Amino acid sequence: MKVIRSVKEMQNTMLEQKSSGKSIGFVPTMGYLHEGHLTLIKQARRENDVVAVSIFVNPLQFGANEDLSTYPRDFERDSQLAEESGADYLFYPDASEMYPRPLAIKVTVGDRTDVLCGRSRPGHFDGVAAVLLKLFNIVVPDFAYFGMKDAQQVAVIDMLITDYNIPVTLKTVETVRESDGLAKSSRNVYLQPNEREEAVILNKSLNEAREGIINGERDPEKVLSFMRERIQQNSSGTIDYIELYSYPELKPVKEIKGTIIIALAVKFTKARLIDNTIISI
Amino acid sequence: MKVIRSVKEMQNTMLEQKSSGKSIGFVPTMGYLHEGHLTLIKQARRENDVVAVSIFVNPLQFGANEDLSTYPRDFERDSQLAEESGADYLFYPDASEMYPRPLAIKVTVGDRTDVLCGRSRPGHFDGVAAVLLKLFNIVVPDFAYFGMKDAQQVAVIDMLITDYNIPVTLKTVETVRESDGLAKSSRNVYLQPNEREEAVILNKSLNEAREGIINGERDPEKVLSFMRERIQQNSSGTIDYIELYSYPELKPVKEIKGTIIIALAVKFTKARLIDNTIISI
Repeated sequence: MKVIRSVKEMQNTMLEQKSSGKSIGFVPTMGYLHEGHLTLIKQARRENDVVAVSIFVNPLQFGANEDLSTYPRDFERDSQLAEESGADYLFYPDASEMYPRPLAIKVTVGDRTDVLCGRSRPGHFDGVAAVLLKLFNIVVPDFAYFGMKDAQQVAVIDMLITDYNIPVTLKTVETVRESDGLAKSSRNVYLQPNEREEAVILNKSLNEAREGIINGERDPEKVLSFMRERIQQNSSGTIDYIELYSYPELKPVKEIKGTIIIALAVKFTKARLIDNTIISI
Repeated sequence: MKVIRSVKEMQNTMLEQKSSGKSIGFVPTMGYLHEGHLTLIKQARRENDVVAVSIFVNPLQFGANEDLSTYPRDFERDSQLAEESGADYLFYPDASEMYPRPLAIKVTVGDRTDVLCGRSRPGHFDGVAAVLLKLFNIVVPDFAYFGMKDAQQVAVIDMLITDYNIPVTLKTVETVRESDGLAKSSRNVYLQPNEREEAVILNKSLNEAREGIINGERDPEKVLSFMRERIQQNSSGTIDYIELYSYPELKPVKEIKGTIIIALAVKFTKARLIDNTIISI
């Protein structure tokens, strides 16, 4: 596996692969790789001639009071894990390489962002869209792999690709979980021991809601208040949101039908965790 | 030459050429081709394996009171001229193919646009940037060709390519002129006979200003007031702007030095004409 830190070198290398007819699979990450990321890399490996992974903690998608400076980093470990999972190229630029000057042309995501994480993180998805527009142009992938844990991010990227005809196919992969059901996340390391135990209720309440819906519940309000109660009674975390929308449009629904997402965010002392489930009935 | 009207077909065709190692030269136009466009196509032909031309009158870059509906169109003639000049593919989508729904993700150009045409055409360059982002993704060119008549457009595209690492190299070509110096433009057909004669003063005053600067004039105000007088005395047109800036930054200068642009726009009865000159001292 080759580590590349320069935008120009990465782009030239990838364009060369592309012009020789090879398919490129791309897994963009912010590093501190866990099994969720590795699942994406392994799938990219199975489906492409060339696999590129990027590690870039994108400052543009962090708000002023968010955890940019404390976001966990471990390049040596990441590098080894990426190689073992089948990456051919690891793109690892620093912020001044990606943003040598402030962007003069801004990207604004005007749909699917006034809900869920978008509401509590203004500008977050603008930053996500901008960096992916850049990364897609640098890596020129045929396929890009994203985990469904960030379902709203997937919905936004889907719009970005459609609106601007980006020649990449989005591949989504199921959320990878710990044995007790907690969604894998780079931020889980910041949970205190009791919080780590309590955090199980996030996925558990989503599963209970799913079961309720499969058994006939059609009222979003009833589902959400049941979940709210379950999480409040079983954890010390503060609920940031628990919401239910159509997917991928992320529009409110009065009655549960078609494909919907239930998504939640809960704040613990040093980590804000997200999880979701998508249900088609 | 093959005419393609579908985004998907164009993109697949171009990606196939790209993956077989061929270089792609691209000339985006709004049609009604004149010698300026043909010069771009011929240069693309000399420098690339494959030449793609697009004809798309982009509604997003026209303001509410602008000439979208009356913008001149002649597809049969354009098609013949493009083929004769060396185009292999002519991409000719309609508006619903390019914008099946309103863009949910907007592009906003926040620099180099508060002057010249940007000032009198709010949102114009946002529309230009959005359509080029789409076209670059559809045509995947190695080289894209633009005329220097739209110097501000070139400055904006240069920023777009830099900000988002678009894997395309910008090629600019000198403004092509009639024998009397008038810049070729699709809109020249809307000049009345006396206006056509008067319009010669646009280029003439630019040349006179250039001469003055070469002979030592360094005061932008003096250059501009001289030009204003020359145009007012020799034409019935209304001056929209005559301005002088650093290039390509398009920042005001107090003293003429380095590379500068003098650009103007003059409104005649049914046509607004632009022209410019770039001077390096």
